[in-house]
Order: sequence, then C-alpha cells, then structure tokens
Amino acid sequence: MESERPLILVTNDDSISSKGIRSLYEAVLPFGDIIVIAPDSPQSGMGHAITINDPLRMEEVDALGGVGVYSCSGTPVDCVKLGISEVMHQKPDLIVSGINHGANTATNVLYSGTMSAAIEGAMEGIPSIGFSLDSFDPRADFTVAMKVVEKIVKEALENGIPTGNCLNVNIPYVQQEDFKGLKVCRQANAYWEDRFDKRLDHHNRTYYWLTGDFKDQKEQTDTDVYWISKGYATVVPTQFDMTAYDIMEKIENWNI
Amino acid sequence: MESERPLILVTNDDSISSKGIRSLYEAVLPFGDIIVIAPDSPQSGMGHAITINDPLRMEEVDALGGVGVYSCSGTPVDCVKLGISEVMHQKPDLIVSGINHGANTATNVLYSGTMSAAIEGAMEGIPSIGFSLDSFDPRADFTVAMKVVEKIVKEALENGIPTGNCLNVNIPYVQQEDFKGLKVCRQANAYWEDRFDKRLDHHNRTYYWLTGDFKDQKEQTDTDVYWISKGYATVVPTQFDMTAYDIMEKIENWNI
Repeated sequence: MESERPLILVTNDDSISSKGIRSLYEAVLPFGDIIVIAPDSPQSGMGHAITINDPLRMEEVDALGGVGVYSCSGTPVDCVKLGISEVMHQKPDLIVSGINHGANTATNVLYSGTMSAAIEGAMEGIPSIGFSLDSFDPRADFTVAMKVVEKIVKEALENGIPTGNCLNVNIPYVQQEDFKGLKVCRQANAYWEDRFDKRLDHHNRTYYWLTGDFKDQKEQTDTDVYWISKGYATVVPTQFDMTAYDIMEKIENWNI
Repeated sequence: MESERPLILVTNDDSISSKGIRSLYEAVLPFGDIIVIAPDSPQSGMGHAITINDPLRMEEVDALGGVGVYSCSGTPVDCVKLGISEVMHQKPDLIVSGINHGANTATNVLYSGTMSAAIEGAMEGIPSIGFSLDSFDPRADFTVAMKVVEKIVKEALENGIPTGNCLNVNIPYVQQEDFKGLKVCRQANAYWEDRFDKRLDHHNRTYYWLTGDFKDQKEQTDTDVYWISKGYATVVPTQFDMTAYDIMEKIENWNI
C-alpha cells in the first residue's frame, strides 16, 4: 500500500540557473512531486528580505528538464511565499533550499537567502531544510552533497521536523572517501571581520565593495564550523524565536 | 568627574529622510557623540540583507541639522558595517536603530531592516537597540516613543547589554496619558497570512504585490504582540544564535 507522494517545494538563492539547484532537484526527484520556484537572478546575502515596495514577476520556465519550474524576480523568501500562494495553492509537505554554492555555517544563517527560505518555511509550519556546499565554485562537484540530501530528506519525510524549526545542513567539499558522516551540532559564534575595498569611479566619486574575513572562535569544538572543517556534514536544528530568554531577568531589573 | 561621552551610531530602515530617524536622533543627542548612517531610500523588509554583488555609495549629507550625518545606498546592515569600518574607524559604544514607522513585534524581527541593524550590532559585540512605533503614518507623533528611547538608552549606557544580544523595543501608538509603561517579554509566535494582489500590466503580463494579514495566536499573554495591544512598550531581549537546542536530541536519533 503506497501513500500519496509528498509535495516538495525546491528553491535557492543562487538562482534557477545554478548547478546547486539542479543537483538538489535531481536528488529529491525520487521522493515526491516537485515544484521549483527560484530567483531569476543571484540573491546571495539577501537574508530574510521580502519585496514590499516593488511588484513581483513569476513565470514558468523551460529549465531543469521538468514541468512545474518557475523563476521569480524576488528574493528567496518571496519565492516561498509566492510559490505557496499562487502556484501550489497549498502548503507543501517539505521545502528544500539550495544546494548553496558556499557554506552557510555559523552566523551566516542570518545573511543567507538559502537559509531564510527554509526559516520562512518553518515560520509557516512547513518542514524545511537548507543545504549548502562548502565551495563557491559554480561548477563544483555535488556528488557527496546529493547523497547527504537524499539521506536527510528521507529521514525528514519519515520522521517530520518539530513545528517551528528547520534544518541548516552544511556539506564539506571533500571526495566521498574523505567524507566522515553527519554531525548534529550548534551554530558557531563566528563572525565576519569586515573590510571595504574603497575605489574611485570615472567621475572621481567613491564607491565601496564589501569584503572581509570569516573568523571562527577557535576554542569551540561543538559547532558547525568545527565539524565541517573535520570533514563532517553538519546539521544545525534552527528556530525563528530569537528571544534571549537567559537575559530577560537582567533586563527586567533595569529601572524602566 | 565626567567620563568621556559615549559614541552612538544611529541608523534605520525607513531612510535618512524619515521622521522616525529624526526623532531618534533628537532623543539620543544628549547622551553622547552621534554619527548617523542611514539608507538613502526606504529599506523596509530588507531583513539581514547585505550588498555583495553591487558597489555601495555613501556620502555626508546636509540632514538632521547635524554634522556626521551620512546616507548610504545599501541596506541597514550595510550601513552598520560601512559606518563602523569607513566613518567611525572604531566600534561605537551603542547602536540605535529606528524609530521604525510600524511595529516590529513577533516574527517581524526577521523581516525588519531596523532590527537587523541592531542584530548586526549584537553580532559585532556592540550594545544595540531597535525601536519601532506601532504606526505606519509618515507624520506620526513620536512624543511617547522619544521618552521610551531616552529611558532605555540611559539604562543601556549605564548597565550595558550582555554581549551577543540586542533589544527589540516596540512602542504603542497612544497618547501619553494612555501609555502604560514597559514590559520585558518574549517574541510572539505570530505570522503573516500572505496574500498576493495579482494584476496585469499594459503588456498583459502578470505581476504581483505582496500583501497579507498579521495573525496572532490569541492565547499567548506573555508576548510583545499581547502587551503592545494593552498600551505597553515591549522590550524583547534578542539573540542571533538560532540553534534549536531543544530538538537536537530528536534529530540526533535520526538514522543518519
């Protein structure tokens, strides 16, 4: 006796034309009925942005060799909202986002459009998972990453993800023989040491490029940054309640 | 014996030309040396977006009647990063963001550019506070809100905010006589029920406007949404560690 096939929404932030979303699409294809709604242009670093001051465009496109593939002019979070409301007309059983070109470990969860799509799913009560590969190479080899996707999607469909949560999965860029397995762990408290590349345009006006170095706090050994550096794929259960319960009492003692 | 005046960075997401940032600027002016770096155009709903695929512009502007006032082409998080790196050349003692035109209670903390600027401050180890007034009126009366700002900024400068945290302060839109005081509380688990306004342009091509209704889960009585509805300003201590520690064990028991 076979149950109905799950409905799976695929999105990302690197755009519909990236190798990462093709790899994700192919990895989840055996698990259900797939709808893809992804940005029509790169949306890396868009975080949880939504488009409220401009109209959105969305159209079915001839991509990924499938039907039900749409590109959208908005952010990854827009894709989730618009896809559910105007394409699927129902909540999917699962949202998968990625596979991102570049890791989204540590505080990058906040900057990442890929993860924000998954967090939006969690906010809407939908089991959601963001996948990222630790390589910015647009032609990166996603073989190991696709196996991780298969493993995690299978478990998520079988066991569910507790409501209000999603998973942040990061995969090391290693060959299969060097891949160590999976670790459930916490988000590292790493940060970007920002630098700006200051330049002059042809009118002698200044402009800046944001750049910087990612700095881990080396003593942490129970984090995504630590384990991915050891060859493990990391799974960080992620929530959208940002309340800092542990300091509430301190603030309550203020003279306000 | 007077200590050195604190250095305060003022930003927002409604842009340098909003009444909200003028109100915030005037409220914090007595507390320290002020630098303002705010978006040159509205950036509501930009969340934690950063600009990585385009160059950024920033220039000193003749606004708010002060010196050290800059407008920036980027997002609120860009303003914080660029301001610290290229204007202040040091971390400020305090970042204040707002006063936002419209509440940022509940899950809006994730969509809000105003709050993302404060969260970025927390990530950089700087005491940071986002302020929002529960009115979208561009000419709203900020009298009550400015008093709340003064109270909270005074306490934050005196007591500090534990590292890695910021405050999400929302102020009800009421007259002074109806203002009930302040409540430290948690982020409500409310959400947007999305709707899209679907239209045709003059080429008969479809476009969509994101809209929707904000839905609270009514049974919650210890949240920002609840207390602001009762006439209280709400203070939600907010952190950037999004790890869902309470479900880690469950995921660890998966067959991965």
